[in-house]
Amino acid sequence: MSGADAVKEDRLWQRHADMAKLGGTPRGGVNRQALSPEDAAARNQLAEWAQKRRFATFADRIGNLFVVRSGKDAGALPVLSGSHMDSQPTGGRFDGMYGVLAAFEALEALEDAGIETKRPVMAVAWTNEEGSRFQPGAMGSAVFAGVYNLDEMFCQKDWKGVLLKDALAETLTAAPAPVRDGAPGFPVDSYVEAHIEQGPRLETERKTIGVVTAIQGSRRYIVTIDGEEAHAGTTPRAARKDAYAAATRIAAAMYAATTDPDDTLRFTIGRVEVSPGSPNTVPGKAVFTIDMRHPDNAVLAAHEATLEAIVAAKAAPCPARIERVTNVPPTDFDPTVIGLVRDKARSLGLSHMDMPSGAGHDAMHIAKLCPTGMIFVPCERGISHNEIENATPADLAAGAKVLVEVLEALANR
Amino acid sequence: MSGADAVKEDRLWQRHADMAKLGGTPRGGVNRQALSPEDAAARNQLAEWAQKRRFATFADRIGNLFVVRSGKDAGALPVLSGSHMDSQPTGGRFDGMYGVLAAFEALEALEDAGIETKRPVMAVAWTNEEGSRFQPGAMGSAVFAGVYNLDEMFCQKDWKGVLLKDALAETLTAAPAPVRDGAPGFPVDSYVEAHIEQGPRLETERKTIGVVTAIQGSRRYIVTIDGEEAHAGTTPRAARKDAYAAATRIAAAMYAATTDPDDTLRFTIGRVEVSPGSPNTVPGKAVFTIDMRHPDNAVLAAHEATLEAIVAAKAAPCPARIERVTNVPPTDFDPTVIGLVRDKARSLGLSHMDMPSGAGHDAMHIAKLCPTGMIFVPCERGISHNEIENATPADLAAGAKVLVEVLEALANR
Repeated sequence: MSGADAVKEDRLWQRHADMAKLGGTPRGGVNRQALSPEDAAARNQLAEWAQKRRFATFADRIGNLFVVRSGKDAGALPVLSGSHMDSQPTGGRFDGMYGVLAAFEALEALEDAGIETKRPVMAVAWTNEEGSRFQPGAMGSAVFAGVYNLDEMFCQKDWKGVLLKDALAETLTAAPAPVRDGAPGFPVDSYVEAHIEQGPRLETERKTIGVVTAIQGSRRYIVTIDGEEAHAGTTPRAARKDAYAAATRIAAAMYAATTDPDDTLRFTIGRVEVSPGSPNTVPGKAVFTIDMRHPDNAVLAAHEATLEAIVAAKAAPCPARIERVTNVPPTDFDPTVIGLVRDKARSLGLSHMDMPSGAGHDAMHIAKLCPTGMIFVPCERGISHNEIENATPADLAAGAKVLVEVLEALANR
Repeated sequence: MSGADAVKEDRLWQRHADMAKLGGTPRGGVNRQALSPEDAAARNQLAEWAQKRRFATFADRIGNLFVVRSGKDAGALPVLSGSHMDSQPTGGRFDGMYGVLAAFEALEALEDAGIETKRPVMAVAWTNEEGSRFQPGAMGSAVFAGVYNLDEMFCQKDWKGVLLKDALAETLTAAPAPVRDGAPGFPVDSYVEAHIEQGPRLETERKTIGVVTAIQGSRRYIVTIDGEEAHAGTTPRAARKDAYAAATRIAAAMYAATTDPDDTLRFTIGRVEVSPGSPNTVPGKAVFTIDMRHPDNAVLAAHEATLEAIVAAKAAPCPARIERVTNVPPTDFDPTVIGLVRDKARSLGLSHMDMPSGAGHDAMHIAKLCPTGMIFVPCERGISHNEIENATPADLAAGAKVLVEVLEALANR
């Protein structure tokens, strides 16, 4: 029996149902924010399942939780797979959790099929990917990869003023897994993360498996335009410095400039603040955010230059400035891992397509450490970060089948 | 001593300074929105000054506050003068408040000069002229004139969901003036409102007194666009229903359509709300206000049709709707009152000019009830609805002198 054959669709679906009770909301979603009692309950549930299968568990000092299925070669670097178990405040049942449960299903399938591997295979639940309670997100994987400093993260506070260090200590005390001393992070052979797509492409194209080639780069800006407040009834147009008229000129030009024929660039104005915000006062100030994403950093750089040119050309008579608040370059995944995902999907007879990831994931940090890849499965209407997030048992199982095959191949290389 | 001779420039200026403390902002303006605690404080201040002068005070059920100086003929209809004490969120110290304090100064001047009049002369502070917290503006005078229905106004909500009825009850409970039962509104002989110009013409033409002949028409709209929240990183443009992208298309087209060659049409988008307001979420909803004004009602009607056509053409794929919240046709003032203002300015040796008002004022509603006119005084650089709004003590006193002479003439006719 192959690893894929040993994947049990019902078991994987039931595990999602069990986890969805921990922080479950009346509308069918979950509120299981990082290092909350609900997050601790999910960790305990995973550790309990691991103990039943006699898989060892341990955590590191940022709270990343590992489940270990040993390999034949005690000295070989492990193959890692997982995602996160924390959710948005009004999150869904699959975002993150699927990647953890698919990895755990892969361990169980290898066990059930009696498949031995050279390398250990580990399932991992990274701490605080969502970043909705403690900033920044993807924290556990970033600390593991040495991108963020552990002690700095300890000092982060939630909106109630709770220190991350204290919330973490409470979570780890409650959990049965032993905590490894020292800085998080250890050498890893490779990493594969399964995730719902969180977008509509697989569903639209009627494909089951997304072979994720990269995580697109993202840049975020705040554009601030200073006008002059004036009376809407008495001030002639020629005498106005209307901050919102300028903002509209800039926004309209940017929407036009970012309308690429292949619909790859993601351009979003998500937050707009106009002040004083009175219907009969010419706006004295307008502030808006721009979120731009693309797999090619050069395209992002070109559109940043376009933004600068448009603001320079269109803001007058209002002074305007652009602040770039984040610049995360694209992550290209490892060709070997990408190839394995594609090959295994094909040999399992699953429809598939190559695609970049629109969203950020823990994999973007782990890709700095070792060969990394991702597997996407469809989610209903592409809706995520929403309590109505949904996926089918068959698609989740299909992704787990590809995952176990890829992990086995990596663990024996 | 004439009424004009009894006007005290220092007293009038000091009253402005005292009122400016109520809702005063660090930048020297005021935030005294309708039916706020600051508005209540201003009402109490006016009532307290009235009591010191032994003028009776009362309010009506929409909160309009009246100060009464009795006349000799108990059966004669009163002459009214006033404006409003509420301000924009970042408003100035003179808009509205000047008209109330000039009327109160006129009452004091008549008293100080020992001048008896046939008719009662009343100062009035109309409720919620600005309409920045509760829509529509000029509410108190409109209810007084029977233009708006009292019970409908009670149901208006501010942007936080507070009912006007509740805010009004709190304001009236705090105020010392008794509240008259029954529908607001009573017969009035005539009405004169003093106001800063809120535009640059008097300053440019070096005139002290504006003899206001008319108020241009104004229409206000709320445009609501429904989109669909989606992940900014994963959702292709073709799959988006981006409410703010649609709002920008509509706004850009309207700015273009309202760019008239003679710069007479006033077009303002003053309030913009985009939700959920997260930088990495495609906006699910956008709401913005439009304020349009022109002396010719037919021009306003034509631009309303243009707005409808643009929303119909540009909103897709988002459903959108336009709500017209106010439609105030142009107002022509009474020739007798206009003539009195012009004559009194001339006989006081004050430079003056005839002019229409660019802004709407409570006078536009009261003009439906009785002969009405307005007196403008200059404000610095024409800037209003702004914390730096400014006027000179001498100009304010000059306007009050014209006012008291006009009121005396009307009160004895």
